Amino acid sequence: MAVESERQSASEDFSTVELALATRNHGFPLESLRYDLTPIGLHYLLIHFDIPQVDPTTWRLEIGGEVGRPLSLSLDELKQRPSTSVACTLECAGNGRARLSPRPLSQPWLDEAIGNAEWTGTPLAPLLEEAEIGEAAVEVLFTGLDRGVQGDVEHFYERSLPVDEARRPEMLLAYEINGQPLPPQHGFPVRLIVPGWYGMTHVKWLDRITVVTEPFEGFQQAKQYRTKQSEDDPGEPVTRIQPRSLLVPPGIPDFPERRRFLEPGPRLLEGRAWSGWAPVTRVEVSVDGGETWQDADLDELTGDYGWRRWSIAWNAEPGEHVLCSRATDGAGNTQPEEPEWNTGGYVNNAVQRVVVTVQR
Amino acid sequence: MAVESERQSASEDFSTVELALATRNHGFPLESLRYDLTPIGLHYLLIHFDIPQVDPTTWRLEIGGEVGRPLSLSLDELKQRPSTSVACTLECAGNGRARLSPRPLSQPWLDEAIGNAEWTGTPLAPLLEEAEIGEAAVEVLFTGLDRGVQGDVEHFYERSLPVDEARRPEMLLAYEINGQPLPPQHGFPVRLIVPGWYGMTHVKWLDRITVVTEPFEGFQQAKQYRTKQSEDDPGEPVTRIQPRSLLVPPGIPDFPERRRFLEPGPRLLEGRAWSGWAPVTRVEVSVDGGETWQDADLDELTGDYGWRRWSIAWNAEPGEHVLCSRATDGAGNTQPEEPEWNTGGYVNNAVQRVVVTVQR
Repeated sequence: MAVESERQSASEDFSTVELALATRNHGFPLESLRYDLTPIGLHYLLIHFDIPQVDPTTWRLEIGGEVGRPLSLSLDELKQRPSTSVACTLECAGNGRARLSPRPLSQPWLDEAIGNAEWTGTPLAPLLEEAEIGEAAVEVLFTGLDRGVQGDVEHFYERSLPVDEARRPEMLLAYEINGQPLPPQHGFPVRLIVPGWYGMTHVKWLDRITVVTEPFEGFQQAKQYRTKQSEDDPGEPVTRIQPRSLLVPPGIPDFPERRRFLEPGPRLLEGRAWSGWAPVTRVEVSVDGGETWQDADLDELTGDYGWRRWSIAWNAEPGEHVLCSRATDGAGNTQPEEPEWNTGGYVNNAVQRVVVTVQR
Repeated sequence: MAVESERQSASEDFSTVELALATRNHGFPLESLRYDLTPIGLHYLLIHFDIPQVDPTTWRLEIGGEVGRPLSLSLDELKQRPSTSVACTLECAGNGRARLSPRPLSQPWLDEAIGNAEWTGTPLAPLLEEAEIGEAAVEVLFTGLDRGVQGDVEHFYERSLPVDEARRPEMLLAYEINGQPLPPQHGFPVRLIVPGWYGMTHVKWLDRITVVTEPFEGFQQAKQYRTKQSEDDPGEPVTRIQPRSLLVPPGIPDFPERRRFLEPGPRLLEGRAWSGWAPVTRVEVSVDGGETWQDADLDELTGDYGWRRWSIAWNAEPGEHVLCSRATDGAGNTQPEEPEWNTGGYVNNAVQRVVVTVQR
């Protein structure tokens, strides 16, 4: 069926629980790949529990644990510190999960759990310096104000990073997106930005930062976000974003299937590519479903952590075509053509397939 | 199963096409009922085709057809005209479709296709006056820049209104939402706002307004958005929003099922209610799944077209409870407890049911 081939195979029907998550946590419409920066409201969202309602006049960020000098900062105090901005592609670690079989009961993303925004805030490293991290410190734990039950454990959402990672100069306590105060859904008043890492690390609605002397074993760290082959497999932690490229589906869609139709003639295919390991150095495009590949033109890099635009001329001839793009980064990582399965449905960066029908 | 009862019954599993629509067209997270105005990015979206990319420097709105004096206005010219703002609840005509059985292959909304924003723009009526509508005029047709295929017909999205309706003083050509320029997904640079009507009428990415001398018979008017009992039934057109009330689910959720848990004790249940026929005059709340009802307190109305806040004290006792709310408007319309079926899955305003577990 055309619809199935366009969307790649999704193994089976989806439950009401998955539908409710998909309706709540929205994806990025692929035509928005045309914007350098993703407008607010088009960036993907994955919110585990409820969006907390935070009073910015009483909110404080606590920095404590294994430190010589605990800090407590109001929003104004954070904003008075040096500020910097970074354009950064965020992607959910579960992007592509809906194409895996079997898949866990979780947010069923197809391709669209992405966004590329400019985040503004104050760097984290000088704050950790001021707090005087102790010698016994192993990790830095980031705790949000969002609370709920997952894996039968009631908890605030929290994730840790190794101390060296937390001290990277580009780590940001962000209070603006695209020049505006964070909207509630992106972590108002302050969230963590960890350029290059999958979204689960960018803790929203930050409440406190705790320097710890043992590796953090909370649910979202030790149980979730690991690539396991079975539930007994400890697996490997999900960290940086694997390379991916997506293209703007050309032509016009139908409703509801979103098949694509266009007229014959010369076209410019375009899209964006990114990787959290190193800048993207190559994008190849196939118009025959991966039989043959051609190198696309790459625009200049716009920073180390934002996506990179690519484009390639295509003469659309009548018939059905399967368009694909494949990114390679400077560390030598390339997108696979088929997904690599794991129990949590993480890190499926297999190449996208867009079916288009060219007709007069 | 607890999950099924919380979400009411959804008759069957959902297809990949439905999932792709749900991921793309996002709903309103119900905890956002706490905000008077819905922040950008939390308002529901239903986009039939692709979001058009519009150059505001060359965009013009054409007003023509059966008029004595056709008009062509740039964005600056529109903005220089008198401006006004209206707080207005928008709801998709298909809200609740996913709970109907059988349902058509379309956007599978549960409860969340809503939003309440402040729209700013210039009133339409004086423009129609300036254009000198002819005596043969029957309807006013609004055409967007979004193009695609639906029902085997390639078309720009367009919808008409009777001339008298189009001349209502509160009809707006809106270029701002919540004090900001429209983002792409809400119709940049200009959309129609028809206070009180379901969302399909509020044409986005406006290209032209055409006064016509025959009723418009396009796909989105004559085939879609009609409550039919069979495909042969001409049905009735969907117009104004039927009354609905939704409550903020209390307590904390689990992931992924979003069941609700809270501790025993006194609580304030709150929510919002609206109707496009007349202001909401009564909201009743049930904490026993509709067996018994109590009147909630209503906040002051904040205008004729925005939603109305309500609240009621509740002493949460241990056990499982099914919370419901039911709105009645000043025209005497009340929410039904069970949906009324139609082929398109439109206008299902049956009362919401939220299952909560109270435990220490």
